[in-house]
Amino acid sequence: MLHILIINGPNLNLLGRREPEIYGSQTFETYFSTLQSDFSTLHLTYLQSNSEGKLIDYLQENGFGTMDAIVLNAGAYTHTSLAIADAIAAIPCPVIEVHLTNIFKREPIRHTSLIAPVCQGSISGFGLESYRLAIQAGLSLL
Amino acid sequence: MLHILIINGPNLNLLGRREPEIYGSQTFETYFSTLQSDFSTLHLTYLQSNSEGKLIDYLQENGFGTMDAIVLNAGAYTHTSLAIADAIAAIPCPVIEVHLTNIFKREPIRHTSLIAPVCQGSISGFGLESYRLAIQAGLSLL
Amino acid sequence: MLHILIINGPNLNLLGRREPEIYGSQTFETYFSTLQSDFSTLHLTYLQSNSEGKLIDYLQENGFGTMDAIVLNAGAYTHTSLAIADAIAAIPCPVIEVHLTNIFKREPIRHTSLIAPVCQGSISGFGLESYRLAIQAGLSLL
Amino acid sequence: MLHILIINGPNLNLLGRREPEIYGSQTFETYFSTLQSDFSTLHLTYLQSNSEGKLIDYLQENGFGTMDAIVLNAGAYTHTSLAIADAIAAIPCPVIEVHLTNIFKREPIRHTSLIAPVCQGSISGFGLESYRLAIQAGLSLL
Amino acid sequence: MLHILIINGPNLNLLGRREPEIYGSQTFETYFSTLQSDFSTLHLTYLQSNSEGKLIDYLQENGFGTMDAIVLNAGAYTHTSLAIADAIAAIPCPVIEVHLTNIFKREPIRHTSLIAPVCQGSISGFGLESYRLAIQAGLSLL
Amino acid sequence: MLHILIINGPNLNLLGRREPEIYGSQTFETYFSTLQSDFSTLHLTYLQSNSEGKLIDYLQENGFGTMDAIVLNAGAYTHTSLAIADAIAAIPCPVIEVHLTNIFKREPIRHTSLIAPVCQGSISGFGLESYRLAIQAGLSLL
Amino acid sequence: MLHILIINGPNLNLLGRREPEIYGSQTFETYFSTLQSDFSTLHLTYLQSNSEGKLIDYLQENGFGTMDAIVLNAGAYTHTSLAIADAIAAIPCPVIEVHLTNIFKREPIRHTSLIAPVCQGSISGFGLESYRLAIQAGLSLL
Amino acid sequence: MLHILIINGPNLNLLGRREPEIYGSQTFETYFSTLQSDFSTLHLTYLQSNSEGKLIDYLQENGFGTMDAIVLNAGAYTHTSLAIADAIAAIPCPVIEVHLTNIFKREPIRHTSLIAPVCQGSISGFGLESYRLAIQAGLSLL
Amino acid sequence: MLHILIINGPNLNLLGRREPEIYGSQTFETYFSTLQSDFSTLHLTYLQSNSEGKLIDYLQENGFGTMDAIVLNAGAYTHTSLAIADAIAAIPCPVIEVHLTNIFKREPIRHTSLIAPVCQGSISGFGLESYRLAIQAGLSLL
Amino acid sequence: MLHILIINGPNLNLLGRREPEIYGSQTFETYFSTLQSDFSTLHLTYLQSNSEGKLIDYLQENGFGTMDAIVLNAGAYTHTSLAIADAIAAIPCPVIEVHLTNIFKREPIRHTSLIAPVCQGSISGFGLESYRLAIQAGLSLL
Amino acid sequence: MLHILIINGPNLNLLGRREPEIYGSQTFETYFSTLQSDFSTLHLTYLQSNSEGKLIDYLQENGFGTMDAIVLNAGAYTHTSLAIADAIAAIPCPVIEVHLTNIFKREPIRHTSLIAPVCQGSISGFGLESYRLAIQAGLSLL
Amino acid sequence: MLHILIINGPNLNLLGRREPEIYGSQTFETYFSTLQSDFSTLHLTYLQSNSEGKLIDYLQENGFGTMDAIVLNAGAYTHTSLAIADAIAAIPCPVIEVHLTNIFKREPIRHTSLIAPVCQGSISGFGLESYRLAIQAGLSLL
Repeated sequence: MLHILIINGPNLNLLGRREPEIYGSQTFETYFSTLQSDFSTLHLTYLQSNSEGKLIDYLQENGFGTMDAIVLNAGAYTHTSLAIADAIAAIPCPVIEVHLTNIFKREPIRHTSLIAPVCQGSISGFGLESYRLAIQAGLSLL
Repeated sequence: MLHILIINGPNLNLLGRREPEIYGSQTFETYFSTLQSDFSTLHLTYLQSNSEGKLIDYLQENGFGTMDAIVLNAGAYTHTSLAIADAIAAIPCPVIEVHLTNIFKREPIRHTSLIAPVCQGSISGFGLESYRLAIQAGLSLL
Repeated sequence: MLHILIINGPNLNLLGRREPEIYGSQTFETYFSTLQSDFSTLHLTYLQSNSEGKLIDYLQENGFGTMDAIVLNAGAYTHTSLAIADAIAAIPCPVIEVHLTNIFKREPIRHTSLIAPVCQGSISGFGLESYRLAIQAGLSLL
Repeated sequence: MLHILIINGPNLNLLGRREPEIYGSQTFETYFSTLQSDFSTLHLTYLQSNSEGKLIDYLQENGFGTMDAIVLNAGAYTHTSLAIADAIAAIPCPVIEVHLTNIFKREPIRHTSLIAPVCQGSISGFGLESYRLAIQAGLSLL
Repeated sequence: MLHILIINGPNLNLLGRREPEIYGSQTFETYFSTLQSDFSTLHLTYLQSNSEGKLIDYLQENGFGTMDAIVLNAGAYTHTSLAIADAIAAIPCPVIEVHLTNIFKREPIRHTSLIAPVCQGSISGFGLESYRLAIQAGLSLL
Repeated sequence: MLHILIINGPNLNLLGRREPEIYGSQTFETYFSTLQSDFSTLHLTYLQSNSEGKLIDYLQENGFGTMDAIVLNAGAYTHTSLAIADAIAAIPCPVIEVHLTNIFKREPIRHTSLIAPVCQGSISGFGLESYRLAIQAGLSLL
Repeated sequence: MLHILIINGPNLNLLGRREPEIYGSQTFETYFSTLQSDFSTLHLTYLQSNSEGKLIDYLQENGFGTMDAIVLNAGAYTHTSLAIADAIAAIPCPVIEVHLTNIFKREPIRHTSLIAPVCQGSISGFGLESYRLAIQAGLSLL
Repeated sequence: MLHILIINGPNLNLLGRREPEIYGSQTFETYFSTLQSDFSTLHLTYLQSNSEGKLIDYLQENGFGTMDAIVLNAGAYTHTSLAIADAIAAIPCPVIEVHLTNIFKREPIRHTSLIAPVCQGSISGFGLESYRLAIQAGLSLL
Repeated sequence: MLHILIINGPNLNLLGRREPEIYGSQTFETYFSTLQSDFSTLHLTYLQSNSEGKLIDYLQENGFGTMDAIVLNAGAYTHTSLAIADAIAAIPCPVIEVHLTNIFKREPIRHTSLIAPVCQGSISGFGLESYRLAIQAGLSLL
Repeated sequence: MLHILIINGPNLNLLGRREPEIYGSQTFETYFSTLQSDFSTLHLTYLQSNSEGKLIDYLQENGFGTMDAIVLNAGAYTHTSLAIADAIAAIPCPVIEVHLTNIFKREPIRHTSLIAPVCQGSISGFGLESYRLAIQAGLSLL
Repeated sequence: MLHILIINGPNLNLLGRREPEIYGSQTFETYFSTLQSDFSTLHLTYLQSNSEGKLIDYLQENGFGTMDAIVLNAGAYTHTSLAIADAIAAIPCPVIEVHLTNIFKREPIRHTSLIAPVCQGSISGFGLESYRLAIQAGLSLL
Repeated sequence: MLHILIINGPNLNLLGRREPEIYGSQTFETYFSTLQSDFSTLHLTYLQSNSEGKLIDYLQENGFGTMDAIVLNAGAYTHTSLAIADAIAAIPCPVIEVHLTNIFKREPIRHTSLIAPVCQGSISGFGLESYRLAIQAGLSLL
């Protein structure tokens, strides 16, 4: 059974609570349950942290053989954390970058991804469905 | 029956012929046949041109009601063509950006996408499988 | 009888069709008829292309004696085409730059005009009326 | 009767006196008389100052209902005065930017206009005739 | 009795008149009367000019012993006037920078303050209440 | 009773201990007691962390209704943390930025505040008194 | 018999017609005849287009075995076309860059060649004789 | 009798009064008397203003034949005023730039002189003696 | 007995495990034992964290008298953490920067060290031996 | 008999000795003998120095009539020496720039040639054969 | 008797020989004789070199007590030599920078002087007379 | 017996003489004698030059087998000399970069080392002791 881990970065724990008229009232937990149902032949796990260091810990702990692929939404750390990029480069497990929004539609600081160069690929702009596509991308790599 | 159009930009007609030890010996036409089989309930069409102007023509001709979604790999024009971006912005049809490679792994001029800000979303780095994911992304939008 | 040519660049063929609540429902063809009536003592011609190369062809074909002035709205190529600028510099016919919108109100990439340095002058921000003013400017030069 | 005000910025009072072999020996006052004759159904007024603050005063004093349009040649302040731009943004009267020369033919510091983003439109490069075109542009807006 | 001077720069004389739905219909004069009442134990004075040179004159005339503190809203000159910065540096009187709006929410040219490095401190983003806070700040310095 | 929270970022726990000849020998705790006395009708709370992730946690935990306003001195994270900025943008509670020093007097990297654009306003350069002014600013907003 | 193809980009079809007092009255066709005579043991061919897409077509059609070397003067596209660079990189045939003028003597935008990094070498500044040197260079590579 | 005019810009009226331990207690007026004595065969005049517009007025009023040379210390306007540069370029009278301090020893914004390119020459860093050298330079030009 | 602390930043806990063909199969713990043996007259301690905040905590807890010197390999935070730099500046204990690799051989973002300006000195490029040299450097300072 | 001088800059004396598996085992002296044989009707001379000043001396000593053309490979000074560029500009003798490698394939600092703007033309990327082409170019100029 | 040394940098030995219609036919040696006559109470010496290292030698050999002042025209090294700047900073003797031309009228690379920040002052744009003014400046410093 | 060469660049011959209150009164020669004593089992040599070309000569003459390691303090050439970097890259002997001061504490031009990317490693900021550490580093490499 393939094991895929989703790691969410800062402020993604607020989904469903933050500006619900824009982001909808669905929490990530609820959406994650749907993913688990839809990919019933996979083992899906989910972790979140607002801390850059904790996200590095998660990548290190899960990147050496435990997981078959990691889906990472690093939130704002995408644009500022070289340390997370180093962690991705250091682990053998493939990592797929996702974003809810299209980062090129936003302010210039969000146009640069420090982690993209060390990820397998990147999916952005499809809202929560970006995660489903990333899991499918992960399966196509395996 | 949903109708999705794939538009390929410059030099993508060389797939299968160009550096086959790297890009493989499969042409896009062969891969496209596989896609048509795999998405048998969809109407898939495919166009290619090396000309920026012709790509704009394709977007204009297919962007007003004929197609349900367009999957666009603009190749090198991704980074230099504001005119293609304007065409995407002008048509009501949703456009999804794809790239075979992870553009952030390449030279700096390829880190900026002029067309990304006007696309629904972007998928890059999964080789030919990026197209399959883009079609799935298109379906999730509809 | 003075002969003035209007050349329109990429996506300007969509006027009247594209976001009509913003740009109005008038096509350029309809507006052009009005111009022809209003300047009945002039010979006005009109060409459009989405192709950078075709626009260069138009400038070369009409810039050596056939026309008394050329009014050029190069659309997005204004900001990316050094080749069109070279064509303007190579022909003896005076060229007047026009834009429907005020390019300085838009995103930074549109603040730089590669063709302006080789044009006689520039008129921007008056919607379709920019063309009328450009014809008047052309007459004042002759 | 429509009332249009022309405001000229620094060093434009030297026209006719400054390098007459280049700029001609016609003063702006003489040209202005011609404009008044040619637009005999309009009320045309003319102000000039070398002072950034005085130009702001002129815009404030004439921008709230007294004038139907203002034609502004801000000279070198075009490129350095955010305060004039703020004055234009603050008044309801439409303002049209003019330049004698094509600013993109000159040194890089003159390629950026701080006032353009808050003007209705811009006309540059037609010598003194730029003013006539700006008045016509103003009439087309009204 | 402590004497504090408020100096307002370009376009701040339009408060109450300019876009009242945004800035409110209160003029600075009215607000200033409120301030005078609320700080009845202080001597408050108020000057305004649209002219960079005049603002320098005000700083020089009031900066050598006459005032205990100066509250300065230099408006757009904040971002372009090195000469005002030099005047502040030259006078012994402490100067406190205020802004009605949060300058970092606005366009990039307004993110740099040339005068901030020579002021005691800076208060921005609280509307007219920024002035009250600046007076309190001035008192805390004395 | 209004409840206002002060959040201090990295290295601010060293106040009183760090270079006392410059920063004084008063700890923030001591100053905070004075603030509590002086604003006896308010409920004031105080949190500090050197961790970017922990500061985001604090903002999330206190930004949805518990507090009436948050006063934030993000220290060096002001200039590097987009993730803290996202947390501020995500919570409905107003946040006021404070700095002990005038950031524009320091090295260039400190001239840019990533968090300022999402704060209500900003107060800097008045030493510990910046906090008192921020509380007053918070009250004026409520 | 070795086969060498010369490809000329935009506006090079105007040689002999454009500013003859500067560029001389010799057309490229005339010069090309001289080259054919001088290199009588070679098979020399010549293509020109103003279209970026057409130039890519030419490179693709002639780059897989038909030609022994290609001499390319991409004109203004040298500085703006990443797509032509990609075409050169994709074909096995060696490509030699030529320019009539020394690009470093011209405006800054012409100091960067996007195609140089994928060419064998570059020859510029010797007028039409640059072509002869490029053919000799091509022979030295074979 | 040769007539040379010294024009001083913003804040130079504070000499002798501003930080006398650094700049000395000598006012410019006192120094100017010494200059008049030392150059007794010349007619020396002196003007000062804090206003950019007034300085342009001075240059225009004195630049057409009245003066043989102008010595200009534009103070901070050196680095921000394109309008003063335009005035210098417009007048036939030679202008010599002076600075009390070596502008390259100060902050980066002071390393660029907008007026230098239109002056005859420049003298900086010799304190008040810079003026004496500038007068000698003016004499050497005449 | 002198007490020297080594602090390692993000991903340095993976040494020996990460790409062993490049970095070798020796863990930092093993190397650290060797250092302890080799410097038997010193008290050597070792701490590691992936968290920026935790590294600041370590610096604060050990920087006021407990340690005689700190050897810091901040990993990727070297290039992004102004907060760690502030912690180093705040503590009286000397800090020596080390890197396994020569940071100037790597991508441009790693060419800038935010912490170097506040360290005593820097040693980079000697692999694990960089630590030994840093300890020797620390001893030479004491 | 035409006299052509080859001047080689820093480190070019190491050819044949430096990384022979890449650059070959042929020294420049050996290659130079071949050139002398091949151009037996010319007088060819050769100089080399690692010193920027010495290269300027060579240019000055040989640039006033002694030589008919100079072929210059300035090595790394190509990108850093404005003084060599000034020497080339000062002498009447035509100078042709050569490079063994294609400088645009190398790191960004090598993409800018300070000497190119003052040379007749430039040849790069053909290895030692670049010298032969440069001599031929020199002959075509004479 | 005061001893002043003039040091001239690269290419200044060509004065009188280089483009005499522009620079005149007077050599520096001839001009230097005039200076010696005109300043007959001074001991004037003159050195020149095209070598950066030699110029540093000259500064070191003459900067510790032998000379009362040094007048330095570093030619193109002004803009590229940090090593000459370090030599000036290291010697106690005052150094005065001169230039024949106004460096701000030339290309951008010449607008930055690396040596100016460590010189007493700077004189540029007065041709050979710049040297006379520099000697006078040196005398005023002593 | 291992042979290590120290090469010192421009102005380092002034140690002990230059600002002795800062740099101390010890010359490099004296310090070098101490090094020779302390490393009595090594053969240490020492060279210095102010000339970039001479330093390249030294590297070339000693880099092919004569020396086991070279310790290089290139002084200001560290930041401007690509030619020295090329010499280091060309020789097989390992080179270690040293600096007396921490270059990141100084002005921005000194933050970039052109030679670092081709050196084994770098040691800076420990005063003369940097040399001792570099020799130890060299030994650890051998």
